[in-house]
Amino acid sequence: MNQSLSSQSPPDSFPVDQWYVGGFAWELTDKPLARTLLNQPLVLFRTASGEVAALEDRCCHRALPLSLGTLEGEGLRCGYHGLLFGSDGQCLEIPGQAKVPSKAKVRSFIAQERDQILWIWFGRDELLAPLSEPPAYPIHCSGDYRFAGDVYHYNAPWQLIHDNLLDLSHLGYVHLHTIGGNASIHMNAQMQVSGDEASVRVVRYMFDSEPPPTYSAAYPFKARIDRWQEIEFNLSHLKILTGAVDAGSQPVDDPQRGGFHMRGFHGITPETDTTCHYFWTMATNPISDPEATTRNVIEQTRQTFDEDKLIIEAQFANQQRFGERPMVDIHVDAAPNRARRIVERLRQVDSV
Amino acid sequence: MNQSLSSQSPPDSFPVDQWYVGGFAWELTDKPLARTLLNQPLVLFRTASGEVAALEDRCCHRALPLSLGTLEGEGLRCGYHGLLFGSDGQCLEIPGQAKVPSKAKVRSFIAQERDQILWIWFGRDELLAPLSEPPAYPIHCSGDYRFAGDVYHYNAPWQLIHDNLLDLSHLGYVHLHTIGGNASIHMNAQMQVSGDEASVRVVRYMFDSEPPPTYSAAYPFKARIDRWQEIEFNLSHLKILTGAVDAGSQPVDDPQRGGFHMRGFHGITPETDTTCHYFWTMATNPISDPEATTRNVIEQTRQTFDEDKLIIEAQFANQQRFGERPMVDIHVDAAPNRARRIVERLRQVDSV
Amino acid sequence: MNQSLSSQSPPDSFPVDQWYVGGFAWELTDKPLARTLLNQPLVLFRTASGEVAALEDRCCHRALPLSLGTLEGEGLRCGYHGLLFGSDGQCLEIPGQAKVPSKAKVRSFIAQERDQILWIWFGRDELLAPLSEPPAYPIHCSGDYRFAGDVYHYNAPWQLIHDNLLDLSHLGYVHLHTIGGNASIHMNAQMQVSGDEASVRVVRYMFDSEPPPTYSAAYPFKARIDRWQEIEFNLSHLKILTGAVDAGSQPVDDPQRGGFHMRGFHGITPETDTTCHYFWTMATNPISDPEATTRNVIEQTRQTFDEDKLIIEAQFANQQRFGERPMVDIHVDAAPNRARRIVERLRQVDSV
Repeated sequence: MNQSLSSQSPPDSFPVDQWYVGGFAWELTDKPLARTLLNQPLVLFRTASGEVAALEDRCCHRALPLSLGTLEGEGLRCGYHGLLFGSDGQCLEIPGQAKVPSKAKVRSFIAQERDQILWIWFGRDELLAPLSEPPAYPIHCSGDYRFAGDVYHYNAPWQLIHDNLLDLSHLGYVHLHTIGGNASIHMNAQMQVSGDEASVRVVRYMFDSEPPPTYSAAYPFKARIDRWQEIEFNLSHLKILTGAVDAGSQPVDDPQRGGFHMRGFHGITPETDTTCHYFWTMATNPISDPEATTRNVIEQTRQTFDEDKLIIEAQFANQQRFGERPMVDIHVDAAPNRARRIVERLRQVDSV
Repeated sequence: MNQSLSSQSPPDSFPVDQWYVGGFAWELTDKPLARTLLNQPLVLFRTASGEVAALEDRCCHRALPLSLGTLEGEGLRCGYHGLLFGSDGQCLEIPGQAKVPSKAKVRSFIAQERDQILWIWFGRDELLAPLSEPPAYPIHCSGDYRFAGDVYHYNAPWQLIHDNLLDLSHLGYVHLHTIGGNASIHMNAQMQVSGDEASVRVVRYMFDSEPPPTYSAAYPFKARIDRWQEIEFNLSHLKILTGAVDAGSQPVDDPQRGGFHMRGFHGITPETDTTCHYFWTMATNPISDPEATTRNVIEQTRQTFDEDKLIIEAQFANQQRFGERPMVDIHVDAAPNRARRIVERLRQVDSV
Repeated sequence: MNQSLSSQSPPDSFPVDQWYVGGFAWELTDKPLARTLLNQPLVLFRTASGEVAALEDRCCHRALPLSLGTLEGEGLRCGYHGLLFGSDGQCLEIPGQAKVPSKAKVRSFIAQERDQILWIWFGRDELLAPLSEPPAYPIHCSGDYRFAGDVYHYNAPWQLIHDNLLDLSHLGYVHLHTIGGNASIHMNAQMQVSGDEASVRVVRYMFDSEPPPTYSAAYPFKARIDRWQEIEFNLSHLKILTGAVDAGSQPVDDPQRGGFHMRGFHGITPETDTTCHYFWTMATNPISDPEATTRNVIEQTRQTFDEDKLIIEAQFANQQRFGERPMVDIHVDAAPNRARRIVERLRQVDSV
């Protein structure tokens, strides 16, 4: 009964009955896309009618990855002996054979596209419909922002990226050459941590400060600025809003505030217990020379995230090398630890 | 008694009391050749008198691979401290030491060259002579054919190549860009599967069909052709005869048939439980511009086998990733499954 | 109590209460140096005041390697959240946090620089001072010699390098293209092996022989020469003195002998149970064109050591491939076996 176990229940390592990010809409082209999520090797594709589909990446005949096959109409044809599968995983045709046995099928996953993000539902019971709609992210569709992004593969477990994004005090040490700025200002800025059962929120404001070069280039600030950094953690993704207005011109904590905005989407999905995918976009609303400014903002974002990747992968490699060892908490760990408790609680709920 | 066990009995993984292909004659040059067969690291070499030899690839002194040594007369000299071994594995000289102890020896294997193929005997009892001559393959020596070949290393167990070669229905999917042609013709061509205790035979004929480009270029066909594909599986190798005559001109199942021939030799030898060596040659009898045509046939063969390698290694990697899981058989599996039963039976006989 | 175990006691694999070579003085620049010794990942650095320090390469906060940090005054600052550690491992500052808890510290190791060699003390009890001064190597400081060296990483356990250096009879097989010369002369030269509880000494003299090219180029020999090879093994390093005087001009076993000298330092320190570091220098006293001659001697030494590395790593890979198997001793193994008994005895003493 190995198969039924493995096909019915996702691994205990991760919370289930959850939507996870599987990719971006623009990744689905005329070829199927192989991607392992939560220890499940999947093939993602878009059918001729535009539907998004996710199947187990294994032909039921001789186990070739279906991601080596070709898209055909509403289905995906295996690249070895040509079995054709529909987006529900049922085999539709076995070339040269009249009858298709009913057991000729592969597991399918519920996949949905929303605001250019591909969401995959990992449910405890694959026969049950998702408990909710996938999260919205209107920034990708509102037209108010220009954005771009990328998919990074991480040789580190997903929670190390949570830690990193929930604690921007590392900017002064890791990102000295990009968005870092003065380490002690970052470290000493007051931080409000709040949240609920399923989310963590971190807010920092820095008033009357010098605009960093990227800001000045992108927006016609008069002189000094009031800045905000607002981080929201959810199980499947974080949203990080940063930006600034002219100092004293308007409240920075007003959701309708104007000024210059950088809005980051950070989808983080486990690949395996020790690796993950990091799906990010950065959206901005530059006024001066929007195209070049956006390009510049994206380029600096990429460089920043490359620096994080270097640190986080080195951190994980070292954790593996040293094995389980006590770690000493410091003040910056409040929000990351809160997120860890949420993940742990959701994981435990699921394994009841 | 670890040594004696390991030197007396090959692993249970593979049938023993069998000849396996170890290489081609032209691979033995002025340097020894390292090759692991059936989990046994060997060094193959040709002595000054032309004899073929196979020794365990480990000096009995400090375990250096003997394949890093140098050929000298009828023996092989270790590259570290200069111990000289004969083709029977006995140490003949220890430089700087008067007496050579009798225990200074390495295991030797029975090796034989026939029709440009190097055969190694893997016997249950290494003291007993082989039960048969190694297989003949006169095509390499008859002078009727031009041929060339190569040795491929596969990150996949040997039986996945058996599966592949015994089922040419994959041509239409895997080899679209080379010898594929129309997938449904391949899939629907009738296939006769026969065989006995030790071999499987698959025959397919395709009458009155369009000659593929390689055929037209190589042979002065008048118009349409009658084609044959004849596959013979034996434990250590497969022979695949393909070719064509002018449609209706002569019986295609006559062993003396004329026309255009492509004759493939496919020696497949386990390296380890999960890897293998694939020794292939392709022989042909082109009439027009024989040298260029042969080159072209070999080039297309190589491209085709490269495509198979890609698929088979991806298949195996996926099988390992998913672990043991049921597989759904289809009509094309008749011959491959028959070959699997032969391997299993021979393996079991041996482990009695 | 995992941590206390792991931080108090080195692995049983290696003798403790010993100095081991950790590097050369010139390796400590303006960046910290990561190096694993005896299964302990360390970061080595030199403080602003010139002191040499060695810490466990793991920040106590979130386990980032400290070797990714930056040197600052007498300490090392972590590259993630900026914790600053002194050379005793105590955390001196946590940016943004008033109080530094006393448990915020990393393990420190006793490090000492002597004659341009960095020595690390690995003691059973880290609280006790070393039992001795680190070994002297005045050749690096006397000014009588020109020298250079390098650090090689070996995918082989350290004792295989001991074996190699204690038995120069391999020169005629491994170093045919460099310092090898006639294999049978090397193999048949008489060898005196002596030693005590902690060292092995091997001496070979070759009288009235042809000077090899390197010797002739470096020193104005009149004609034939008397040569010496003197090897001294100690647990942490070997010293190998080779050289020659004009034949019959003076006793070759006189420590005050003149002539041409090549003096090798060979620090060998386990990295893990199956890998090691090889720290070597070669010192010489050329008379003709000293700079070019030294460069030439170093270049030939490097080429020779590259050949050894190739052989030794192949030997170890083969030993792993074949597993535990009897090895046949020959005459050249007397000194290596003696060294192995010393290592084993020191290891056992330590694990009492």
